Amino acid sequence: MAEKTLLASRKFIKPSFSYLIEKKRDGGEFNEEEIRFIVDSILDKEMPEFQMAALAMAIYFQNMSAQETATFAEEMMLSGEVIDLSKITMPKIAKYSTGGVGDKTSLVLTPLAAACGVVMPAMNGVDENFVISTLDKLSSIPKFKADMDLKEFVKQLKTVNCAIVQQHPEIAPVDGILYELRQNTATIQSLPLITGSILSKKLAEGAEGLVVDVKWGNGSFVKDLEQAKQLARSITRVGRSMKRRCVALVTDMNQPLGDTVGTALEVREAIELLKGEGPEDLQELVLKLGMEIVRLAGVAGSTLSAKQTVQKHLKDGSALEKFKEMIQVQGGDTSFIDDPEKFPTAKYIRKLPAPKRGYVHTINAGMIARGVQILATTKKGKMDPAVGVSEIKKVGTQVKQGEPLMMIHYNDETRLESALEYLRSAYRLAPKRPNPPELIVERVA
Amino acid sequence: MAEKTLLASRKFIKPSFSYLIEKKRDGGEFNEEEIRFIVDSILDKEMPEFQMAALAMAIYFQNMSAQETATFAEEMMLSGEVIDLSKITMPKIAKYSTGGVGDKTSLVLTPLAAACGVVMPAMNGVDENFVISTLDKLSSIPKFKADMDLKEFVKQLKTVNCAIVQQHPEIAPVDGILYELRQNTATIQSLPLITGSILSKKLAEGAEGLVVDVKWGNGSFVKDLEQAKQLARSITRVGRSMKRRCVALVTDMNQPLGDTVGTALEVREAIELLKGEGPEDLQELVLKLGMEIVRLAGVAGSTLSAKQTVQKHLKDGSALEKFKEMIQVQGGDTSFIDDPEKFPTAKYIRKLPAPKRGYVHTINAGMIARGVQILATTKKGKMDPAVGVSEIKKVGTQVKQGEPLMMIHYNDETRLESALEYLRSAYRLAPKRPNPPELIVERVA
Repeated sequence: MAEKTLLASRKFIKPSFSYLIEKKRDGGEFNEEEIRFIVDSILDKEMPEFQMAALAMAIYFQNMSAQETATFAEEMMLSGEVIDLSKITMPKIAKYSTGGVGDKTSLVLTPLAAACGVVMPAMNGVDENFVISTLDKLSSIPKFKADMDLKEFVKQLKTVNCAIVQQHPEIAPVDGILYELRQNTATIQSLPLITGSILSKKLAEGAEGLVVDVKWGNGSFVKDLEQAKQLARSITRVGRSMKRRCVALVTDMNQPLGDTVGTALEVREAIELLKGEGPEDLQELVLKLGMEIVRLAGVAGSTLSAKQTVQKHLKDGSALEKFKEMIQVQGGDTSFIDDPEKFPTAKYIRKLPAPKRGYVHTINAGMIARGVQILATTKKGKMDPAVGVSEIKKVGTQVKQGEPLMMIHYNDETRLESALEYLRSAYRLAPKRPNPPELIVERVA
Repeated sequence: MAEKTLLASRKFIKPSFSYLIEKKRDGGEFNEEEIRFIVDSILDKEMPEFQMAALAMAIYFQNMSAQETATFAEEMMLSGEVIDLSKITMPKIAKYSTGGVGDKTSLVLTPLAAACGVVMPAMNGVDENFVISTLDKLSSIPKFKADMDLKEFVKQLKTVNCAIVQQHPEIAPVDGILYELRQNTATIQSLPLITGSILSKKLAEGAEGLVVDVKWGNGSFVKDLEQAKQLARSITRVGRSMKRRCVALVTDMNQPLGDTVGTALEVREAIELLKGEGPEDLQELVLKLGMEIVRLAGVAGSTLSAKQTVQKHLKDGSALEKFKEMIQVQGGDTSFIDDPEKFPTAKYIRKLPAPKRGYVHTINAGMIARGVQILATTKKGKMDPAVGVSEIKKVGTQVKQGEPLMMIHYNDETRLESALEYLRSAYRLAPKRPNPPELIVERVA
């Protein structure tokens, strides 16, 4: 028996997939070789989907340790191309948001970081169904090109210092396979699987560090604050195990971010933000995330200098210039940035009247997203970029009966009624002013 | 919204499989329509295997209530043919054992019950890998035919009152699909899934009641006594919900049952038992299970009369006669029953010597099964019916150094050494006499 043990320590004997599922089911911890074997078997299509699904569900219930998750993220990262940006001497930081309704910060932060001297690669993948993705938004700029091969991507990062492109299939391909499976097996919401997914992709894009915005609330896929905090801790802890600098902010997603939800409407709001203008909540979020980016990059040493750096590049127009440069290099029509009136607008605009007087007590952001999705879905199944909602009255705002809770932009009257049902149900009014929700709940580093 | 609720109560709207997985993942309880939809979708191959696997793992962790499990068993039963034995006026009882090393009680109880006036349908499926199945044992009788169409099966039950045949693919086909999947996804050991599997098959075979032998220990797939008790309770509770009479005994499987393990060796031991002879432990188990069968069937009213009925049919030779009749009708050569010396025997027999003096303290029945499996596997991958072990010294027996712990019957000397390793490791000797294990631990009705 002693001989067998010795042999085992020298040579990895492939275990059966059933054995690995059982091990995790019973709360066991995978070693490095087992995780490498699992990731390789997924890549080589040797592990059948039904065993991947059983394993994912076992992981959902039994979790993975920080060490397991780090190995898992590392192996998923290594399952495809890992972009080498070492020839760019500037700091390289990625930003990731778990996604939220009305969130346009990626559009703003990517060029803002580049303006501040931080290279920011940004590949965008599949988002939660009901959230409009960053690429959907950019596609409202005519001729903007989001698919790019890896050489072009690296070249643009060298010249423009930022790029927002489609997720490349060669980046962490195992994550792509697993993510699709997880979507259909109720295993998206597993902390180690989310953590591994984010880190494997973002680090394969060539980033040295990562700033993560973990959103919690009714407009996020993480409904529970405690879970959001755990996710923030998981990402930063595992990131450290992978020897990367990581900071996470846990932020509020219990009402839409900013004043608009809708494709073109959101790009226009992003342009405002790039000018240092726009809604307060988004200005604050851009500032705070921007500060984390420049500090993590080492561009700014103190909180004060980070704040000054970010504010300077918004006010002096250099962030907006960087945005235009990026759009131009990616083929987009920059005249839309100079003259946002050129963006398509909806035929009809009407108000959503407040049913009674009072204070906006809560807003279900997920319902607003659904309402906008209904307005935007055309008969051909495409998304109409012109529609959406604007002038959203946020939590804590006092309204009179009949006063608009928001303005609804729509093209198709037949869809209005069913969209209205969601938009109306999203609002709760109350006689007393509620405590304002905290935008940034926690910082985890 | 009230209208929607009304509609939902009238008409079942198919949910997505992801939704159902998520519901179970979060501890929800499926309603009848949802379970019917799941079972139908598996039968129609509409539910992909990877979603079945995720669901099975979610059920493993979150369980199902007695009501859910009853509906699940009922729907799986209804997924195929349900044998109608209503034209047979005699009581119809099935017996099921979770399987154990050296267990030959099915061979004995089936004809014994028939001799006592209880019709006993017995389809046998896939057993745990290392246990020799009842059909493997019967296949050592030349020309014995185990595959039978359902009409023949019913006919034999009418004329002979018992039949031991292969699991028919039309009986609970969804259980067949699920069972195969569960074997490869570490989801065999889920109480509600085991319960549903057993009840759906056994009740589809036409039984009005069911006697279950739930084995626990190192020679069973249920290693833990508490889990065995839970399974016994689960089967009887769910059986009741399905309006069937059910009794379960929890019995010891921490050493082989009887004196032999091996194909032909076990059939020969079964013949002894049918004569009212053979090893004490098996005699007791046959008696106790037999009594449960005749009482559940209503053939005997009291414990005493049940005991007398069973003992009478063993002693007067009618159980053995019934066994011969069944073998004959199923095409087997009954001269082997009359003259068991005709069964194939091994070329070599040698003892496994006790390494020291002492008492047999524990026996790992699983290891003995593995040892026998190694001896029996021929170069062509078939099982050699002649080999096995006999004269097994049971727990509590005192042995001198060098005295045989068992006799090993083998044909292939090259396999002996590796088999011996398992057989030797199965035994623990100790200087003090251990407490004898309790054969029948609990009765659940």
